[in-house]
Amino acid sequence: MTTGDKSPTTVPFLYDRSGNRYDVTDPRWRGDDGTPLALSPLRGITPDRIVTSERSLWRYQAAIPVDPKHRVSLGEGCTPMVPLTWDGRRVHFKLEWFNPTMSFKDRGVSVMISHLAGQGTRRVLEDSSGNGGASVAAYSAAAGIQARIIVPESTSAAKIVQSRAHGAQIELVGGTREQVSSEAIRQSEWITYASHNWHPFFLQGIKTVAYEIWEDLGFAAPDNVVLVAGAGSNILGCDIAFGELLDAGRIEHRPRLLVGQPEHWATIADAVNDLAPTTRRERVPTIAEGASIADPPRAPEAVQAIRRSGGAAVAVSEEAIRAAVRRLASRGLYAEPTSCVAIAALDHFIADGTIGADETTVVVLTGAGAKSSEKMASVFDQDTHR
Amino acid sequence: MTTGDKSPTTVPFLYDRSGNRYDVTDPRWRGDDGTPLALSPLRGITPDRIVTSERSLWRYQAAIPVDPKHRVSLGEGCTPMVPLTWDGRRVHFKLEWFNPTMSFKDRGVSVMISHLAGQGTRRVLEDSSGNGGASVAAYSAAAGIQARIIVPESTSAAKIVQSRAHGAQIELVGGTREQVSSEAIRQSEWITYASHNWHPFFLQGIKTVAYEIWEDLGFAAPDNVVLVAGAGSNILGCDIAFGELLDAGRIEHRPRLLVGQPEHWATIADAVNDLAPTTRRERVPTIAEGASIADPPRAPEAVQAIRRSGGAAVAVSEEAIRAAVRRLASRGLYAEPTSCVAIAALDHFIADGTIGADETTVVVLTGAGAKSSEKMASVFDQDTHR
Repeated sequence: MTTGDKSPTTVPFLYDRSGNRYDVTDPRWRGDDGTPLALSPLRGITPDRIVTSERSLWRYQAAIPVDPKHRVSLGEGCTPMVPLTWDGRRVHFKLEWFNPTMSFKDRGVSVMISHLAGQGTRRVLEDSSGNGGASVAAYSAAAGIQARIIVPESTSAAKIVQSRAHGAQIELVGGTREQVSSEAIRQSEWITYASHNWHPFFLQGIKTVAYEIWEDLGFAAPDNVVLVAGAGSNILGCDIAFGELLDAGRIEHRPRLLVGQPEHWATIADAVNDLAPTTRRERVPTIAEGASIADPPRAPEAVQAIRRSGGAAVAVSEEAIRAAVRRLASRGLYAEPTSCVAIAALDHFIADGTIGADETTVVVLTGAGAKSSEKMASVFDQDTHR
Repeated sequence: MTTGDKSPTTVPFLYDRSGNRYDVTDPRWRGDDGTPLALSPLRGITPDRIVTSERSLWRYQAAIPVDPKHRVSLGEGCTPMVPLTWDGRRVHFKLEWFNPTMSFKDRGVSVMISHLAGQGTRRVLEDSSGNGGASVAAYSAAAGIQARIIVPESTSAAKIVQSRAHGAQIELVGGTREQVSSEAIRQSEWITYASHNWHPFFLQGIKTVAYEIWEDLGFAAPDNVVLVAGAGSNILGCDIAFGELLDAGRIEHRPRLLVGQPEHWATIADAVNDLAPTTRRERVPTIAEGASIADPPRAPEAVQAIRRSGGAAVAVSEEAIRAAVRRLASRGLYAEPTSCVAIAALDHFIADGTIGADETTVVVLTGAGAKSSEKMASVFDQDTHR
């Protein structure tokens, strides 16, 4: 199996970077070679197979390789796409905080937990101090699965109250975010690792954001999709779904994926721009904390996906992110700073002419401002003290 | 005009409790007699007039008496309805935090601000320390209207960061919540009072929750709709919309409206249950702060609506509200304590046999747990310290 082999298979399978194949029922979360797993190409969806009476991402059930009888749904997906005039251009804002735990991660977690429930999984493990942990905790509760969430010791109690509320076991681990991940990988020897960064079925849920964009544009692809990247799952979800739609002849072209990252965490953008990682300064904290992933497991695939789309990536400054939060709020939309990295990227790609005046552009806003009240306050306090 | 006169009129008008009529373009927010205004009966909606490509409450545009060219939309409405087995019954949970500012109020505010924008309004006034203020601030920003939000002096900075972010002027006023309302009413002499408790067009947005329930049940009414009531706007919205659908022959019966209120704030429930207000203790703070409205302007109409539906109301204890928050979270849903008054009411009406085993029941959950992190933490801290 090479990534160039794009024919959909009747029976989907998993494969790693070395080309090793595994059955989809294999409980593994990475390949024998230690690399992330991907699902073999699927056929995607056609308009007539959409269950239009279903007000969740499960309207695309036909394109989700999970047995519907194990489906664990809390109403995720089917988020609105709000058109605004932005710098004289018509831009569509896809509001992903319209989700059960108020971030885009619910799409992936719903499909991943449904898959795991279908495998008879009773306990899952996740490492996250933010949106991922809350989402895995919520869906595990809905599925009757015991969740264990490993979080950095420094995490404030306020950030994990939702995970605890859903009955998850919280384990505090000292050290960096990377040491927390290492501990999770160690424990994955005996508990199923339901990692939003690693599990291949997570992306099968994330991809539905692209189906929705396509459906809401009257079954057409936009010219551009603007995204923030931490681990890059929205890049990969779009790559999978628009790839399926293209292969099936449902769209004419892939939309360009235009990606923003905080300047000190530009793991994917630097590679796209052929910058040596050393040209970046050390990993200092960013207000876009959801995008501060030092070592995204799927970074090479994300870089390939951006290039395949004819897209681009940019590293944006903290000041540009703060300005983006303020600018978006002045239009009535209250998105967390992480999401607003996409707004900073939008402004950048309009200013440099990448986004043309007559193009159709969609910006994905991944999470809610109200979930990051302290960070939002810091942006606006700064404003009032000027 | 009496409330018994139910024929839809071609040209809608406003009326007060004394029967005085006013043009819908009249900028007033209450009648000459000082009572709240209602809109004359409308024709409601038929399935063929729903704009199914629209993923917001504006799919029901045909039933919303606002000129579409002034529409101010941030993707409100079209919230999911998640079915769960609850005490052996199939119960549908309508998740109203899937909204721009994460509460049901966005439905009403979208329609109210659209109406006001159509009137050429440049400045609006609201009094609210919570969801109402954030929503009016967001939609005003989207409409290019200057919002002024009057809040109690005791309000924490964290609670008004979103309103400030949207550019609203915040005025802190000393005294009780009622004194804050009085100040708003005083200022309404010179600024348009966009009050979620008073403005008649607010209810024209809230009513769309009932259309959605009807549409999602295959164009049928449920047997029961379970609600929390503060000022009672969800009661009144359901009363309007199910009344329209009944009059048009689109449903067979009104669903029973089953209503919960915190025991010290049972302004509507006490009247439904023929209890003298003096039988209730003083107004002590409740964890369900969104439902702590001492003097709802439309209380008599809310009581009538519950009775007209054959429904019932109950005052629930603080302990029952806390237990409801925990019980709901254990199923994967994270709703603010105010919303969970409806869960406490659900449990009450199942236990006393009001809700039968084979009935279709919808519970409306009005707002997000993550917007009330401190209160949520207090519920679950209590748990861990047991």
